[in-house]
Amino acid sequence: MTILDLLFGRRLANREGEQRKIGWVEGVPAMGLDGLGSSSYGPEAALTIMIPLGALSLAYVGWVIAPIILLLAVLYVSYRQVILAYPTNGGAYTVAKENLGPLASQLAAASLMLDYILNVAVGISAGVGALTSSVPFLHPYTLPLCLGILLLVAVANLRGTREAGWLFALPTYVFILSFLGLIGWALVRLAVHGGTPTPVVAPPPLGPAAAGASLWLLVRAFAAGCTAMTGVEAVSNGVNAFREPVVDQARRTLTIICLVLGLLLAGIAAVAHAYGLGAMDQTKAGYQSVLSQLAGAIAGRGLIYYVAMTSLLAVLCLSANTSFVGFPRVCNLVARDDFLPRAFAVSDRRLVYSAGVILLTATAGGLLVLFDGITDRLIPLFAIGAFLTFTLSQTGMVAHWRRQKGRNLHRLAINSLGAVTTIAALLVITAAKFLEGAWLVTLAIPLVVLLMRSIHRYYERQDKVLASHGEFSVDEHEPPTVMVAYEERNRITDRALRFAMTLSPDVLAVHLLRLEGPNHEEDIAAVRDRFEREISGPLERAGAATPRLMMVPAPFREIHGPLLELVEKIDEATPGRSVAIIIPELVPRHWWQKLLHGRRAAQLRTALMEHAGPRLMIVSSPWRGTR
Amino acid sequence: MTILDLLFGRRLANREGEQRKIGWVEGVPAMGLDGLGSSSYGPEAALTIMIPLGALSLAYVGWVIAPIILLLAVLYVSYRQVILAYPTNGGAYTVAKENLGPLASQLAAASLMLDYILNVAVGISAGVGALTSSVPFLHPYTLPLCLGILLLVAVANLRGTREAGWLFALPTYVFILSFLGLIGWALVRLAVHGGTPTPVVAPPPLGPAAAGASLWLLVRAFAAGCTAMTGVEAVSNGVNAFREPVVDQARRTLTIICLVLGLLLAGIAAVAHAYGLGAMDQTKAGYQSVLSQLAGAIAGRGLIYYVAMTSLLAVLCLSANTSFVGFPRVCNLVARDDFLPRAFAVSDRRLVYSAGVILLTATAGGLLVLFDGITDRLIPLFAIGAFLTFTLSQTGMVAHWRRQKGRNLHRLAINSLGAVTTIAALLVITAAKFLEGAWLVTLAIPLVVLLMRSIHRYYERQDKVLASHGEFSVDEHEPPTVMVAYEERNRITDRALRFAMTLSPDVLAVHLLRLEGPNHEEDIAAVRDRFEREISGPLERAGAATPRLMMVPAPFREIHGPLLELVEKIDEATPGRSVAIIIPELVPRHWWQKLLHGRRAAQLRTALMEHAGPRLMIVSSPWRGTR
Repeated sequence: MTILDLLFGRRLANREGEQRKIGWVEGVPAMGLDGLGSSSYGPEAALTIMIPLGALSLAYVGWVIAPIILLLAVLYVSYRQVILAYPTNGGAYTVAKENLGPLASQLAAASLMLDYILNVAVGISAGVGALTSSVPFLHPYTLPLCLGILLLVAVANLRGTREAGWLFALPTYVFILSFLGLIGWALVRLAVHGGTPTPVVAPPPLGPAAAGASLWLLVRAFAAGCTAMTGVEAVSNGVNAFREPVVDQARRTLTIICLVLGLLLAGIAAVAHAYGLGAMDQTKAGYQSVLSQLAGAIAGRGLIYYVAMTSLLAVLCLSANTSFVGFPRVCNLVARDDFLPRAFAVSDRRLVYSAGVILLTATAGGLLVLFDGITDRLIPLFAIGAFLTFTLSQTGMVAHWRRQKGRNLHRLAINSLGAVTTIAALLVITAAKFLEGAWLVTLAIPLVVLLMRSIHRYYERQDKVLASHGEFSVDEHEPPTVMVAYEERNRITDRALRFAMTLSPDVLAVHLLRLEGPNHEEDIAAVRDRFEREISGPLERAGAATPRLMMVPAPFREIHGPLLELVEKIDEATPGRSVAIIIPELVPRHWWQKLLHGRRAAQLRTALMEHAGPRLMIVSSPWRGTR
Repeated sequence: MTILDLLFGRRLANREGEQRKIGWVEGVPAMGLDGLGSSSYGPEAALTIMIPLGALSLAYVGWVIAPIILLLAVLYVSYRQVILAYPTNGGAYTVAKENLGPLASQLAAASLMLDYILNVAVGISAGVGALTSSVPFLHPYTLPLCLGILLLVAVANLRGTREAGWLFALPTYVFILSFLGLIGWALVRLAVHGGTPTPVVAPPPLGPAAAGASLWLLVRAFAAGCTAMTGVEAVSNGVNAFREPVVDQARRTLTIICLVLGLLLAGIAAVAHAYGLGAMDQTKAGYQSVLSQLAGAIAGRGLIYYVAMTSLLAVLCLSANTSFVGFPRVCNLVARDDFLPRAFAVSDRRLVYSAGVILLTATAGGLLVLFDGITDRLIPLFAIGAFLTFTLSQTGMVAHWRRQKGRNLHRLAINSLGAVTTIAALLVITAAKFLEGAWLVTLAIPLVVLLMRSIHRYYERQDKVLASHGEFSVDEHEPPTVMVAYEERNRITDRALRFAMTLSPDVLAVHLLRLEGPNHEEDIAAVRDRFEREISGPLERAGAATPRLMMVPAPFREIHGPLLELVEKIDEATPGRSVAIIIPELVPRHWWQKLLHGRRAAQLRTALMEHAGPRLMIVSSPWRGTR
């Protein structure tokens, strides 16, 4: 039981992977938190753009939210097709790769990765926004709270998907029930009583209109609100996490997520209109998120408010979890195609791709620090990656159905509609947000693509150099020269010497001289005497092959230099034969033994590895230390 | 040219050590900075104790400083003897070891080490005190300034003694000239004009006496003032750094240091008395060190003041340098006797003992942080170690002369006087400072001794286990079983396989299976086919010994488990024969290649090393990556 086991849970064998598949009940929290959580910051982002309109904004909120819901519907039907067509893995990366070619797939990968990162940052910052709305004295600690939650989620994810899924299911379902309940209750009361409702806790009054409602402002509000749609693609990216029947499980999950999200968006717009809710500035103390105002207005600041806000906090913070499921999967797929370092393709202790989890944590943490954990500052970067992904995925599906021919005409039509809609939305969003920060994303995506392509080129070149095909042949028949490097005879060096003698008749005992103290010459003679008396003498008498003694002065603490010179001389004398250097090494049993023994053997080995010629082998002769 | 070279200078060969010896001109700054710098905080520490006396303290300052100067004179003549008797290395550790036995030497080592550490902390904090006296707006940054200077000194010392010596010589001599000049000028004016002098910049007025002058208070002031004497032993500890004639060079260095220190102490007492200077509280803004008040009172706040204070700042900060010369030397001596980890006995890139430098930096930094960089809080811990060292050294010298017999009676007398005086001073100082913090030191010294003894016991046990004497014999004649572990055939694995075949006719090609994907069975068949077609087939036809293929499923990412199981099976089948595992490893040429290749081979090697049985050898087959 190591510390790693305690923190991250016990290791899982590859074959345990199968049992870790999930159904729709776990699927909604595991893949839907992102999409559902967006319902909190999407409408709020739209209302933030509309702050200058003051009370006038209430008249327009429906006009901004309606097209967003429409877009969501288009995405829903489109992604149902994707799940059907790619039941093993329908991520935009795969779809683009198979239907649109490598460049499109790299674009999809880069934008997916960027959006996953942003989703973590936005989700957590919005969650902390909800927290500071409920508990105002925490407001000054916004950034530390963000980073603490990020770390918590990262560790939970390094433990593996399953636990994370269960841990997160409760707040998800509480969130869905409480907010749908609140909104439903408000709408019923409105329908029954009619007229203007009286809020239990009045939201801060909206100011007078500072500006008229220009089309440009409404388009910008729409673009900001589109962040509500991020995360819808998560199900199609993670289809292979579902258990059989895969397509049904995935589609049911997608349906629930989209339905709840649509209801929440429509409900929030309706309640905001009826109760006169607007957005506030998160950087200022006294900030109240829109959903906090909504819950307060409908239910007052009682138990229901705190239950709802707690679940919202949890859902928002954990919506980051969708990214933690998706990001490593995307990295894994991309790494398998050699577009990312191969470390991303190795599944870790608990079958989670830890390199991906760590990269995601680091980059999202960087964004949070850079933007002070303020949601509103992160929003302009967001959604562009998501809509680029949507576009590539839908365009890829169009190509897919065209190739398949036959009775897929209605599928082709659906995905064509999806493609056209998402391209249009992408253009609108990019234009509307460009100056506010979207330029950063339009710069970053091509740069990531360039990086991925140069990684690929490196691996290609490397593999070409290393490729070995055809018949294997032997070019060397004689045993190598074996050197045993040591500073002093002891049982470890004895063992190394015995081993050396089983490998080759040509053994060199290389005594490393420290050359300190004034009695240098005498020391050399003593070393030689002892070697002849204790080692070579007895062996000769026994008729065995005897190792030769070499004394190598080690004028630097770094002793690999003289050793490599010696290797070079041997190479010249015996061309075509290999040389093996045996380094006897005491392996400590405890951490404190490491302090007492230092790392000389390990340092020597590393230095030799770095400078090794084509025929040098480095042999470690380990000896476990005493307890 | 690596970054390390740039920061720490090029490597030095062992034989260059000789040319790096120093004479007295470099010796005074290199070994005297500690002693000379003490002149600033010693009198100040005494005056701090006397703050409650207010103006009354001026009447007693002479009575406190005079016995300190007397003590200094005794130490001076005593240490001249030490240098004569131990011209190669007269540190307290050696003197105690040779004359008083191991326990005394360990006590000496522990107290020396602690005092070196404290000297760094006190010197730097006092230096920063001088700085904030001159530039008051830096006062809030006391601790960061301390740590910054500590780091600077540490890096300078990692570059090697010589450069450090030259770099530090200028401020030392400027300090000596300017303060002796200032004091001399003041005394001449006093003598000529008589009466009470008018300070150019008036020091803050001394308050009325809050208490009468008790003997206890004066003793405590004396004990605090004794910190002025720390560092006097540095020359005797570092004798082997001097060039020939060693004894003359060292004695001349000692004479200059003691003479200047004595003059400074006497002068400061006289000027403080005449001008009415007292100590102030360093934690409060507006703090002025005693030497700052002194320089201001004599010369005003002009060029001379700033030159003097700058040199004082440099000397105080760099008085830490004495410790950086001495501490690693002591660690080295102690480590050679196996009482400290052997890493301390290895001289580093530039012939400085870097493990010692790093330990000193870390511990002194810890003390500075713990005590907020306030000199006054560190002073009570100080001087006890120094006086314990003095005592052990002088007692050891008494034993030395007694053993030598003959015409050494006057030498015996001198060191006996030294021993008696330093024992008395040690008792007084410990009693006077005990409750203020000295208890910490009286606790720490025995603990360090215990630690050193348990380190020694560990090495003894270890050496006993590993000892190998008598005639070497061979117990194994057959070549080992050689395993080549690989995941995929390429030129690196080909080379490893060829090498394996030169070592033994019994070669196992161990193909590590990843067991991912659904086509598992087919994959196994394909691997076997390819091996027979490309490797074993051609070899058989050529009549060579053929390696056997083994496929090892690696269900964990950690693949050492299955490999070790295989080794165990082989061990059982072929008892008495060794097993060698060859790990083909690509060695990256650049840091970014490390990112792209990961550390799988290195991780496997480390894991195998940690779990290796008595007959397992681990062979690295390095292959340098492409550029």
